[in-house]
Amino acid sequence: MIYADNAATTKMSQVAMQSMMQYFDENYGNPSSLHTLGQRASEALVKAREKIAKYLGCNANEITFTSGGSEADNQAIISAAIMGEKQGKKHIISTKIEHHAVLHTLKKLEKNGFEITLLDVDKKGVIKPKQVSEAIRDDTALVTIMYANNEIGTLQPIEEIGRICRDKGIIFHTDAVAAAGYIKINVKEQNIDMLSMSAHKFHGPKGVGVLYSRKGINLTSLIEGGAQERNKRAGTENIPAIVAMATAFEEAYQKADINKIYLSKLRDKLISELSKIPRSIVNGDSIKRLPGNVNMCFEGIEGESLLLLLNEKGIAASSGSACTSGSLDPSHVLLAIGLPHEIAYGSLRLTLSEYNTDEEIDEIIKAVPAVVKYLRNISPVWEQIEGGK
Amino acid sequence: MIYADNAATTKMSQVAMQSMMQYFDENYGNPSSLHTLGQRASEALVKAREKIAKYLGCNANEITFTSGGSEADNQAIISAAIMGEKQGKKHIISTKIEHHAVLHTLKKLEKNGFEITLLDVDKKGVIKPKQVSEAIRDDTALVTIMYANNEIGTLQPIEEIGRICRDKGIIFHTDAVAAAGYIKINVKEQNIDMLSMSAHKFHGPKGVGVLYSRKGINLTSLIEGGAQERNKRAGTENIPAIVAMATAFEEAYQKADINKIYLSKLRDKLISELSKIPRSIVNGDSIKRLPGNVNMCFEGIEGESLLLLLNEKGIAASSGSACTSGSLDPSHVLLAIGLPHEIAYGSLRLTLSEYNTDEEIDEIIKAVPAVVKYLRNISPVWEQIEGGK
Repeated sequence: MIYADNAATTKMSQVAMQSMMQYFDENYGNPSSLHTLGQRASEALVKAREKIAKYLGCNANEITFTSGGSEADNQAIISAAIMGEKQGKKHIISTKIEHHAVLHTLKKLEKNGFEITLLDVDKKGVIKPKQVSEAIRDDTALVTIMYANNEIGTLQPIEEIGRICRDKGIIFHTDAVAAAGYIKINVKEQNIDMLSMSAHKFHGPKGVGVLYSRKGINLTSLIEGGAQERNKRAGTENIPAIVAMATAFEEAYQKADINKIYLSKLRDKLISELSKIPRSIVNGDSIKRLPGNVNMCFEGIEGESLLLLLNEKGIAASSGSACTSGSLDPSHVLLAIGLPHEIAYGSLRLTLSEYNTDEEIDEIIKAVPAVVKYLRNISPVWEQIEGGK
Repeated sequence: MIYADNAATTKMSQVAMQSMMQYFDENYGNPSSLHTLGQRASEALVKAREKIAKYLGCNANEITFTSGGSEADNQAIISAAIMGEKQGKKHIISTKIEHHAVLHTLKKLEKNGFEITLLDVDKKGVIKPKQVSEAIRDDTALVTIMYANNEIGTLQPIEEIGRICRDKGIIFHTDAVAAAGYIKINVKEQNIDMLSMSAHKFHGPKGVGVLYSRKGINLTSLIEGGAQERNKRAGTENIPAIVAMATAFEEAYQKADINKIYLSKLRDKLISELSKIPRSIVNGDSIKRLPGNVNMCFEGIEGESLLLLLNEKGIAASSGSACTSGSLDPSHVLLAIGLPHEIAYGSLRLTLSEYNTDEEIDEIIKAVPAVVKYLRNISPVWEQIEGGK
């Protein structure tokens, strides 16, 4: 199987797996316990927290471990909203291309009296810092803008947006689930107040994530109970997963520069070759883009059929976010960049990791045009498009 | 190390570990993905859900996977509260000996206008069904009572309480985190509407749990985002952990009868031998008790010192719930059964699993009296107690 769906989830790194194994059946203690097994777990927790803080450029006590990216997004936004509400600030700025973990949380806040401004993106899926500064009001409590889009890979001008928010004293959160592990992020240098990430997107385990929140930000618990995570996230700490996430994050950080060059090369080769397919569109920005992200539309075909036929040829790809793959609606991201419904339906997302080889890329380059051609041949829509040429 | 802190967390079972390994680096797909790797993950999810439903005696679509017991408790209580609020019912009945995941969630609801009745327990830590029926009001939205207490091991008359609630049309939730895997539970036969459990308490992995909710109960999402778990719990499903939990639960269920006999024997031997220590108290009920739970107090000593010295002798034990071990307050459970503060401080909890051997029990029986004697010799409090005899 050629796995080109790394934005959905990734294969675990062997180093990360090895690092967690001892915590399942050997050093399996609860870090809250006083005895040796508890203390070993507690030390592992401290080390993992320090490691992640180091590579994010923050302090260890600014890291909260969560069950994943969605929980981190929810907690970040709810916390900032509650902080804002106490000061009479009930306006939040975000974008139309956020992940549903952000958009649905904002929708919930809207029902509770918050006003939400969702910024438009341009045709490449990019936000201009000026749009943020123009949208800011006296009652703006939070700006939440994703670091990189999970579907079309677009990178946003995070540092400049952070600067604008910092100058106005507004909390700035970024959903970095798609970016973390692929792009080197430094929260202090980039003026980020809160950041979410998820281990399974960068070869760590599923079921664990990070919420970074700058000192001074008062987190609200979504899950009440024990005093874990400085009273901000109850539940026995998931030590094996936390340790593996820290290992995977360190590995990803250390390889980030070399992986960026490698993945960009594979990505650009894919884009350049697949663009030769007639009536194809490359979605997203060619430069401000995640190194391993390819997102294209092919007129006259359905994304789902394309995926199923590619799967038969041993290629695992997606049409957009895995989180919405059960939905029949076209991607909200592709609609936001201005694609008409009928074209947005024909999208293909190929997302690469360091485990992909040049040979695999060649396979994909052979397979996609053949499948697109086959589907167009049996498509009545395509007949009309061709007929209307 | 003799591990006698299985109520804090457990060693993973080898069978459970083996069952999850393939999902880390081989069948690591996102179950929402259409391709083969996604479908394999999706099938694993279906099978795990069916397996857990089978052993709980419910339907698969009544199972929601969470990040653990605390999240399940929070979601159960919040969901029932919101359902009640819509009908103008804002009264909840619980007990004084619940886990903090329950008590703190109830405290939050109290701040939001709910009225909470916390029932007293008797000296053994038991609730009488009559107390529940007497506390029920026209505006009662929920009764939430734990199946077994995590500190003193007391089992509650769940089936009778469930019957009372069922007759009155009130939702009945039970926190079964301490019981699941040790006691065979059948939610239908026992009139349970909602139930929480956590894998790492029965030799499954950390970071995963179950919320059972009877058909007709409308769950409220604590974490918004993708459409996972029937739209009730967003976030990429933690497939390896879910699979391992199902395996561990099946294993625990199949061994439950034999383990009950084995653990009860070890437990009763411990209790009978340690009771020979002068001025010692056995906490909890001798019959309505988790098979592997021992909880005792020794007058004139501090629980923390006892634990540290036992740890030096290679015995991992606890003084109460691991979740509050950082706290200097005595256990709310021990206070609720009527122990004075100074005695509650001197508590020792030994919680056993099938991995404990008879030889280990003998070691503990040798170690505890020696440590208690040593601590009493250096304790000014003990001098007063002995002097006052």
